[in-house]
Amino acid sequence: MNALVQAAARDLEALRARNPLVLSFTNSVVQQITANMLLAFGAVPAMLNDGEEAADMLRACTSALLINPGTLSREQAREMRIAVQTAREVGVPWVLDPVAVGLLGFRTRFCSELLTEKPALIRGNGSEILALAGYSAAGKGPESNDAAEAALPAAKELAATTGAAVLVTGPTDFATDGHSVLACSNGHPLMCRVTGVGCAMGAFAGAMLAVSSSPLQAAASTAALWGLAGELAAAAAPRPGSFLTAFADTADALTPHAVLTSARLSTFPG
Amino acid sequence: MNALVQAAARDLEALRARNPLVLSFTNSVVQQITANMLLAFGAVPAMLNDGEEAADMLRACTSALLINPGTLSREQAREMRIAVQTAREVGVPWVLDPVAVGLLGFRTRFCSELLTEKPALIRGNGSEILALAGYSAAGKGPESNDAAEAALPAAKELAATTGAAVLVTGPTDFATDGHSVLACSNGHPLMCRVTGVGCAMGAFAGAMLAVSSSPLQAAASTAALWGLAGELAAAAAPRPGSFLTAFADTADALTPHAVLTSARLSTFPG
Amino acid sequence: MNALVQAAARDLEALRARNPLVLSFTNSVVQQITANMLLAFGAVPAMLNDGEEAADMLRACTSALLINPGTLSREQAREMRIAVQTAREVGVPWVLDPVAVGLLGFRTRFCSELLTEKPALIRGNGSEILALAGYSAAGKGPESNDAAEAALPAAKELAATTGAAVLVTGPTDFATDGHSVLACSNGHPLMCRVTGVGCAMGAFAGAMLAVSSSPLQAAASTAALWGLAGELAAAAAPRPGSFLTAFADTADALTPHAVLTSARLSTFPG
Repeated sequence: MNALVQAAARDLEALRARNPLVLSFTNSVVQQITANMLLAFGAVPAMLNDGEEAADMLRACTSALLINPGTLSREQAREMRIAVQTAREVGVPWVLDPVAVGLLGFRTRFCSELLTEKPALIRGNGSEILALAGYSAAGKGPESNDAAEAALPAAKELAATTGAAVLVTGPTDFATDGHSVLACSNGHPLMCRVTGVGCAMGAFAGAMLAVSSSPLQAAASTAALWGLAGELAAAAAPRPGSFLTAFADTADALTPHAVLTSARLSTFPG
Repeated sequence: MNALVQAAARDLEALRARNPLVLSFTNSVVQQITANMLLAFGAVPAMLNDGEEAADMLRACTSALLINPGTLSREQAREMRIAVQTAREVGVPWVLDPVAVGLLGFRTRFCSELLTEKPALIRGNGSEILALAGYSAAGKGPESNDAAEAALPAAKELAATTGAAVLVTGPTDFATDGHSVLACSNGHPLMCRVTGVGCAMGAFAGAMLAVSSSPLQAAASTAALWGLAGELAAAAAPRPGSFLTAFADTADALTPHAVLTSARLSTFPG
Repeated sequence: MNALVQAAARDLEALRARNPLVLSFTNSVVQQITANMLLAFGAVPAMLNDGEEAADMLRACTSALLINPGTLSREQAREMRIAVQTAREVGVPWVLDPVAVGLLGFRTRFCSELLTEKPALIRGNGSEILALAGYSAAGKGPESNDAAEAALPAAKELAATTGAAVLVTGPTDFATDGHSVLACSNGHPLMCRVTGVGCAMGAFAGAMLAVSSSPLQAAASTAALWGLAGELAAAAAPRPGSFLTAFADTADALTPHAVLTSARLSTFPG
């Protein structure tokens, strides 16, 4: 057990004690699993479409904002910009989850522009992080063809230029602030067989930002808690329908003790 | 067993016999659970975005309309107004579920305007009912900070001024038509740990309007049947993922006999 | 066992081997079940709102496109047209699922216009196919009042005039290319008690188009694999909440051997 794992266990306790509200502008496919997983872990989900309403909520009671352009429309992009600008004004940290950036032109331009608005955390697979950092990358929809590790240099650059912690997800997840790199080997392949598990992880990263000691630790705690809940659920329910149910049950039941004994977080000699 | 409980059991039988179609303009987070719970109880769900299409459906085969502004956009507000006006023209009763009214300005104005269109039933938590009645109320997103009972005077006023039955939900639910107050103590805390359980209850209230003897009884039957299905599901499945599954199964399996023996509905000396 | 059943078993093997990406413009109620069922069967789901983004994806890595106007808006209709036109340009086959056509005016006009864009496959219930072929039909929302068999002459006409294979779904499903008619008696009534099972079948038909020998065989394989997964799930989970979970598990577990022994596909003497 190391300090990273101890911090992840503390972050879980803080999440349960403080129930931060995460406001998500996210794609319509994953809204239910996103809200249900936040609730299961102890956070409070909120989702809106209107920028003025988002501003009201950001000023009132919001701990973090998620921007996920998975089913982006021109209208949604406009409202998301209002939400992000308000979040900066009022000091609410925000997460960018650049789904399918690199493959689709409109969202690639949109997310690249948003990088100037100082996201606190960026979560993506290897292809998405490579593309967002300005490298070409081949992706087939939301699944990554580039290993997360291959995207590490791009992730470090992206962190350095934006000031965000970057979480690159894959069989091993990597978190970096541009200097340190942390690695997490929790998780299970079944997590890629249910829609929205990756996107909901972006919202969960928002909850972690609200309780963790730094964006880098938030990224590491996200990877560890999310991956551990997923692997425990897969052990209980080895097919995708029942996995979806077990994932929420496991998140609800996850204890700091289980994190201390089973989270696999370490510094990475990158 | 009292007359209110007997009426709730009859309403369940009528629902199964008549399968009313409930047209919902509701937020995108809760559409799946809303449709699935209506189906499980014996109603027919329909959801639309376009006001002209809503008018076609309201004229053809619709028993009730739900308006839920949970993820309201300017465009959706416009289409919802067309739907509500058509519902009034053709005599279809409609339910208002004022999610997060009081906290967010745009929807607060929108729902306040809609009150002139004679909703048959309004369902909200204490904060939302207080705000809709014109009192200030503190709310953190969709969850209520004010006890339902504290909102009872506001609920009675709102019922008196609009002509709607008002259902205030909380650990105890209260239904009022401005004169009588009914109380229901069915339900379980796990119902707040799954997204959309409250919003789907608003759609279920529409189904009850279609089969019940009055809006007030519809509100009471909604509270009793919904709360009873929830508490039976929680007894079978004590964590949120499996609760979601069990809730639909329990709604499907709920019998009038179970309602007669386990619904807790009474008049409230308010 | 006949050649149709053998082809359905081969189509399942090809689906698992090739993992075609199906891009769906579909209604917001059914997006989660659609994506999860495609994943469970072995396909890759993608969903978008923007026509320009759809064009990028259709040019890059898409095997089939689904158009389902279940929650159609004016804006979505415009973006769907761009997607369909691009699909034709780049040779990606597309499926039309004309939900509630005949009942609602705007989508009836929209889907009728789209027929000139050469869909490869059309899936609907009897009412919808009758209406799309220009006959009047009474429908109560998404459920069919006309038996699928009564719509067979209309289905054959529609296939002949559009060049599409037409899949008419009901207790018995019928597939026709305007000449031959195939019938499938797999399936279970519980499939109508869970929202989106029909709509998700339309997306699955897109996956079948990507691996099958012809649109007619794709329609027949769709009916057989979908219906068989549904009846096996219903045998394991006889209530709607647990059926939804079991349906994905069964799709994931379905073997070519089970298809060979239990699919009920035959030519129909129509």
